[in-house]
Amino acid sequence: MARALTLEQIAAQLGGRIVGDAGVLIRQVASLAAAGEGEIAFFSDSRYRRQLAATRASAVVVGPDAESLTKRPRIVADNPYAYFARVSLLFNPRTVQPVGVHPAASVAPGVRLGARVSIGAGCVVGEGVEIGDDACLYPGVVVYPGCRIGARTIVHSATVIGADGFGFAEDHGRWVKIPQIGRVVIGEEVEIGAACSIDRGALEDTVIEDGVKLDNQIQIGHGCRIGAHTAMAGCAGVAGSTRIGRHCAIGASAVILGHLEICDHVRVSACTVITRSIRRPGTYTGVYPFDAHASWTRNAALLRHLAALGRRVRELERKLEAKESGDG
Amino acid sequence: MARALTLEQIAAQLGGRIVGDAGVLIRQVASLAAAGEGEIAFFSDSRYRRQLAATRASAVVVGPDAESLTKRPRIVADNPYAYFARVSLLFNPRTVQPVGVHPAASVAPGVRLGARVSIGAGCVVGEGVEIGDDACLYPGVVVYPGCRIGARTIVHSATVIGADGFGFAEDHGRWVKIPQIGRVVIGEEVEIGAACSIDRGALEDTVIEDGVKLDNQIQIGHGCRIGAHTAMAGCAGVAGSTRIGRHCAIGASAVILGHLEICDHVRVSACTVITRSIRRPGTYTGVYPFDAHASWTRNAALLRHLAALGRRVRELERKLEAKESGDG
Amino acid sequence: MARALTLEQIAAQLGGRIVGDAGVLIRQVASLAAAGEGEIAFFSDSRYRRQLAATRASAVVVGPDAESLTKRPRIVADNPYAYFARVSLLFNPRTVQPVGVHPAASVAPGVRLGARVSIGAGCVVGEGVEIGDDACLYPGVVVYPGCRIGARTIVHSATVIGADGFGFAEDHGRWVKIPQIGRVVIGEEVEIGAACSIDRGALEDTVIEDGVKLDNQIQIGHGCRIGAHTAMAGCAGVAGSTRIGRHCAIGASAVILGHLEICDHVRVSACTVITRSIRRPGTYTGVYPFDAHASWTRNAALLRHLAALGRRVRELERKLEAKESGDG
Repeated sequence: MARALTLEQIAAQLGGRIVGDAGVLIRQVASLAAAGEGEIAFFSDSRYRRQLAATRASAVVVGPDAESLTKRPRIVADNPYAYFARVSLLFNPRTVQPVGVHPAASVAPGVRLGARVSIGAGCVVGEGVEIGDDACLYPGVVVYPGCRIGARTIVHSATVIGADGFGFAEDHGRWVKIPQIGRVVIGEEVEIGAACSIDRGALEDTVIEDGVKLDNQIQIGHGCRIGAHTAMAGCAGVAGSTRIGRHCAIGASAVILGHLEICDHVRVSACTVITRSIRRPGTYTGVYPFDAHASWTRNAALLRHLAALGRRVRELERKLEAKESGDG
Repeated sequence: MARALTLEQIAAQLGGRIVGDAGVLIRQVASLAAAGEGEIAFFSDSRYRRQLAATRASAVVVGPDAESLTKRPRIVADNPYAYFARVSLLFNPRTVQPVGVHPAASVAPGVRLGARVSIGAGCVVGEGVEIGDDACLYPGVVVYPGCRIGARTIVHSATVIGADGFGFAEDHGRWVKIPQIGRVVIGEEVEIGAACSIDRGALEDTVIEDGVKLDNQIQIGHGCRIGAHTAMAGCAGVAGSTRIGRHCAIGASAVILGHLEICDHVRVSACTVITRSIRRPGTYTGVYPFDAHASWTRNAALLRHLAALGRRVRELERKLEAKESGDG
Repeated sequence: MARALTLEQIAAQLGGRIVGDAGVLIRQVASLAAAGEGEIAFFSDSRYRRQLAATRASAVVVGPDAESLTKRPRIVADNPYAYFARVSLLFNPRTVQPVGVHPAASVAPGVRLGARVSIGAGCVVGEGVEIGDDACLYPGVVVYPGCRIGARTIVHSATVIGADGFGFAEDHGRWVKIPQIGRVVIGEEVEIGAACSIDRGALEDTVIEDGVKLDNQIQIGHGCRIGAHTAMAGCAGVAGSTRIGRHCAIGASAVILGHLEICDHVRVSACTVITRSIRRPGTYTGVYPFDAHASWTRNAALLRHLAALGRRVRELERKLEAKESGDG
């Protein structure tokens, strides 16, 4: 992809308004701090104003409000970060793996592969799997039998799609396995990071809708549904049978327990544990604030007697009230 | 497994009492909501009473107390969920991978494989490993040298058994590696989910006893012992040298620190961190309640001054007491 | 490695002072409790004093203060645990995999491998990767194109190095992928456990400096830098663009959010969430104390009203103060 484009050519493809020399040649993207000759950077956060002033980038993508903060050739765009992403896609591929099935992949007979699918070395694709056009499985992905992966979806290495959900019935202290006969059905333009596990459904399918983005080390339990365009950061986990709405953002290491419903447009902060269904959009948080160890020790000790403290305060209020009415 | 059985044939194998037409043909299991002609569902939770009433299942497994809640042909069993699991095992295999070693697996010379072992593509089984009868390793499992896996045990993809435990001695700011010379010894009828890691012991073995069930993304540190028939939900972690008893249930994302002892029949709630040994059966919990972000912010701010709040309450109590004795 | 060394030969290589019979033959290391004839154990924690008294080890490594606690042949060393580690390395290999590229590994053309590199079955090494002398990749490791791994570094199975960082720009409710064009650069004598994921940088490299030790299931986001000789226990996670200093110790399941700076010599307790930069060495903690479930329920309920409780205490203080000045 060693190509060069002028700002004018970039704007012709992606829109935006050029200020300054439209003929500047761009070959790659870079950060404000690292960019040099032939590179374009972006500015979308006022904390980086000093870096914008000092950048040696050949051009910068800026928002309308930042147009005058630099004299460099620039493209003014409403959403500079998204614009920058699109510029980067002009110079860099979405996926770096060649099209086709690597000879060291194991693809079961009868698998239906779309056009231009890329399957890396060490991937194992089970019977009856369907994979859509332009999908990419990086090395070492395992797709259990019967699962579906939509077009343009990317799955990173060591991710497991369609392993058995955790379904056991207790019987006199022993666990009886419940065969997991649902599938995993993944939509289009999904991206799934490395070392994730998305379990097949117990009876019905686990569903990842279009445009969902999952970071690494994410666990999705059996029978979940993750709504379209929801993003989940690294190490997040969703227990079985939970439905998450569309356009949600789930922070790193957040956990959402099983059999819950999370409505659309919910943001869950990193490391928060969701124990009940959420029916109103908004941001939800529950994380223990860290502290110097000694302070934490003192505070945590009292936390285990918080209900008692509450009762003591109530008692004080009662006494003081009694005293006041007595005084009156 | 496309077979059909009458209710009578099912009950002949699994017990239970039939109410209604014992000749109804069953071909598969399904949920109450999705079941149709030829399918059997189960009912064990009164919250699904409406679904029971509306189900189109050809038959239902119910408990003795629910016998009269439906007119459908039904099997009455003491534990409908476990009965349903066993019915499902009549129609569906425990494992979906053919018996034998896949040609794309790497099995070291000298490995001892039991009868009917199934080893999927991309598995790597190291020297001196022993695997019992009817065990199943799904694609991409790695078993380091010297480990043992018992009969009928199932291991899902991308799980690593027997990697080095995290053992380093600090010496003048550097870490000296301690060779990990123990093994991992896994009992019979264990199931281990996808993307787990169970480390070999530093000096003695890491042991997973019979009937243990581990969900996905679980980490078991070196030298742990997990007691028979204990179940651990997804993303749980156990640090090194901890012993967990039999018949415990460890919730999703729970963490049990190292060098602890957890007695039999302990339940640890999801996302709880166990920092001390537990010597009495029961349920243990410690999870920060989530809230709307703004509420959390206000409450968490005070949490960092909880010990001081406690002192202020004590001071109020002291003053009020002094006042009262003064009043007296 | 079935060799035998006398205490004298061991001390000649590793230093230390022998007390008792220097000719005792040692063949292996073991714990105080399990050691027998021909085995050497170590003692560095006074809680194991009874085990020291009862040990049947042929010799023991002890600190100067413990020299007289046993009559067994012993080596006195300043740091018995580190000394023991070095003794173990005389009898056991650092890595158990043969040198060379396993025929079932996939190494792209143009990869630069140092001397005596060991690459296990099922590993996939992408284009342009460089791996230093004596490095060891256990089976099933994936290294994406362009990454570097330093000399003597060990990477355990199912670990993924260089997958795309989680970089997406939101645009009208859709996520636009930002190509991740940085690399992962790993220093020398690093050890990375099983099932870890270390993402390549978005624009600049992700860097793991010399001597870093990572346990299993660890997630390192794009653009992080982990300082030399820092150790991280299992399931810890570091979000993107965070820099961790040298000689830090990050506990199991700890999470460090993105865009932070952690200075040298910081200890983060297990299961603690670091939400702000840390500029002073020390130990930092934030973990919800677990309790019997019923107690937790009572206390956690009040935690959600802690700010209100604080106001009530302030109000009590105000009233009492008013009363006191009124009394005066």
